[in-house]
Amino acid sequence: MRVAELSRTTGVPVPTIKYYLREGLLPAGELTSPNQASYDERHVRRLRLVRALLEVGRLPIATIREVLRDIDDDSDWGMHERLGRTLYPLAGVPDDPPGPELAAAMAEVDALIARWGWQVEPHSPGRRRLAEVMLTFRELGVGHLMNAIDRYAEAAEIIAESDLRGITTDRAPDDVVTGAVIGTIVGDALQAALRRLAHEHTSVRLFTP
Amino acid sequence: MRVAELSRTTGVPVPTIKYYLREGLLPAGELTSPNQASYDERHVRRLRLVRALLEVGRLPIATIREVLRDIDDDSDWGMHERLGRTLYPLAGVPDDPPGPELAAAMAEVDALIARWGWQVEPHSPGRRRLAEVMLTFRELGVGHLMNAIDRYAEAAEIIAESDLRGITTDRAPDDVVTGAVIGTIVGDALQAALRRLAHEHTSVRLFTP
Repeated sequence: MRVAELSRTTGVPVPTIKYYLREGLLPAGELTSPNQASYDERHVRRLRLVRALLEVGRLPIATIREVLRDIDDDSDWGMHERLGRTLYPLAGVPDDPPGPELAAAMAEVDALIARWGWQVEPHSPGRRRLAEVMLTFRELGVGHLMNAIDRYAEAAEIIAESDLRGITTDRAPDDVVTGAVIGTIVGDALQAALRRLAHEHTSVRLFTP
Repeated sequence: MRVAELSRTTGVPVPTIKYYLREGLLPAGELTSPNQASYDERHVRRLRLVRALLEVGRLPIATIREVLRDIDDDSDWGMHERLGRTLYPLAGVPDDPPGPELAAAMAEVDALIARWGWQVEPHSPGRRRLAEVMLTFRELGVGHLMNAIDRYAEAAEIIAESDLRGITTDRAPDDVVTGAVIGTIVGDALQAALRRLAHEHTSVRLFTP
């Protein structure tokens, strides 16, 4: 298909597509003449992924390039390694060593992980991300809200099981990883929306006569 | 306390505090001389809340003003009404009527709400927010990920019950509502971080020999 059709199919304007091509977020089409290129289904899927990463995930262009490179890496990784390599950079966790306060919070995260028997790599960005959230609660004077963390962990197990079971039914490997990236990012928004509806219902149950 | 001590206590720089005062996000201190004002614990709590809304919730200033006005409204509302009035604007859902595609997705949300027996107001912003997430999944070509929505709803019930039970142990009404606002916003980040850790663990279980 020509770029105009690619635009119609995906709803992404032509100038935006050209911007993605310049930034290396979308592979070049196949040249059919010196001034014309042809695009295929692979470009449609890639465009959708880039939109999810930019608009829903609000990731910086450099991170998106890294994620796309990992998706396209066709080394002989198993699915677990492949998901890890692709999803770790999504967390946007910095490389610098944590300060003493953050390190203490990370030790609490380690205790939680041990309590739940979770197998998580020492360098998993989720550890640091969770520790940062803990510190935010405390800085905001509502550290007691962290008392509920085991209920949150229970809910996370239910969702993770469902998310990962869903993955196995997919097909082509880059499609699987693309689905995992989109599911990770948009799944956060899904969870947040449902939590608000459940809050309202629970508030009716607990706080109305 | 003087503004310098308010800054030291909360970690918010003095020029930022003055900006919040000008924008009406922080009530004026009590004047102790024509050029000096005194601040108290109420200002400390309010500053923490404003930081959570701005930095974690990334809410626009106008929305924050609306949320603060609702928190300060000491009309004789019950807790359920008070939480609803304060938390509804947080969703940032527009007032304009939904188009046909969004309206269809909202009907699917209604079906989910009925299936779970949730009591949710017809004008609850959570309905529209969830419908928008559904459309995003479809536009991104991964509508099948919505098959897992009932597992997400199950997890949301567990978390909502825990969140709302936590609320009842709090004290002063504006403190309760402040805690609910912070918990709603920072709780999303908590859930997202734990989901990633649980993903990693589940991936080890399902995808490694």
